[in-house]
Amino acid sequence: MKFCSQCAGVVSRRVPPGDNLPRWVCDNCGAIHYENPKIVAGCLPRWEGRILLCRRAIEPRYGKWTVPAGFMENGETLAEAAARETLEEAMARVQIDRLYSVISIPYISQVYMLFLGDLLAPEFGPGDESLEVRLFKQGEIPWEDLAFPSVTMALRWYYEDLDSGEFPLHTVDFERRPG
Amino acid sequence: MKFCSQCAGVVSRRVPPGDNLPRWVCDNCGAIHYENPKIVAGCLPRWEGRILLCRRAIEPRYGKWTVPAGFMENGETLAEAAARETLEEAMARVQIDRLYSVISIPYISQVYMLFLGDLLAPEFGPGDESLEVRLFKQGEIPWEDLAFPSVTMALRWYYEDLDSGEFPLHTVDFERRPG
Repeated sequence: MKFCSQCAGVVSRRVPPGDNLPRWVCDNCGAIHYENPKIVAGCLPRWEGRILLCRRAIEPRYGKWTVPAGFMENGETLAEAAARETLEEAMARVQIDRLYSVISIPYISQVYMLFLGDLLAPEFGPGDESLEVRLFKQGEIPWEDLAFPSVTMALRWYYEDLDSGEFPLHTVDFERRPG
Repeated sequence: MKFCSQCAGVVSRRVPPGDNLPRWVCDNCGAIHYENPKIVAGCLPRWEGRILLCRRAIEPRYGKWTVPAGFMENGETLAEAAARETLEEAMARVQIDRLYSVISIPYISQVYMLFLGDLLAPEFGPGDESLEVRLFKQGEIPWEDLAFPSVTMALRWYYEDLDSGEFPLHTVDFERRPG
């Protein structure tokens, strides 16, 4: 950030009066420009014991497999965001079930929130951001080619919970950048 | 938003190529300025069967009672945000327990995420944004003077769950502005 979105004045990084963190503050009009974490909402779509995954057509992790997920938009609920991302990335309609995993990723200022969902029909295909979309049985999950640790973790939780038939919320913090 | 934070050019509201929602786009350099929902993280602090509430010293809902909660900051986890808000607003240190309620509020583009927590000691006081902070027994909760529906709902869930001793995650969407 270099300029104020209100008045086009130059901004500088400083702690506003009464605050305790540095913010972008306009040298001209004094407007304070806060920056906050973003929510990534997604879905683990199920159909007859299989899981729908998408192979990414975009960076980062081009060519790797992931669940449908993306930035939540203003004006929608978490569940709406998860369903919309599933429609956009996997061209699939889902009934959103429970919130299943909440992962704080502070080093990129994101919170990753994944729902369980059920496909309304076995109809899907690659959206603009996917190369390929397919249903995987448990033994077919491409564990070595998953795009993100959050996806690996959610799928591991899912198959563990499948044995007990209970699907409680899982929360974890990714405290440091992997690798 | 009137000006581009990258180049100080004039921005206009339009749908960028490949997108399907209007964004603020710079007429000069083409930068796209996304706006996303904010997370409000908070805590329901417990001490020996009582709940700590804060009376707001700021608008909106000046003078009404609430739980410690506020905007999550970049670089922190959800639980860190909830503990920080409790320290700032109630001058109290808490051990964060489980994530307890997740409320989507699409008409203000916020997601309200509340943890259960336990005071480390019965030490607290009004931070800058509170007029008064005190512990309430169940029969003392000022139901008519709570600041927000999300607080009323979380406290109702809490006392219902207290009977069963189980505290599962509660999720709800506030689809329309109250009143």
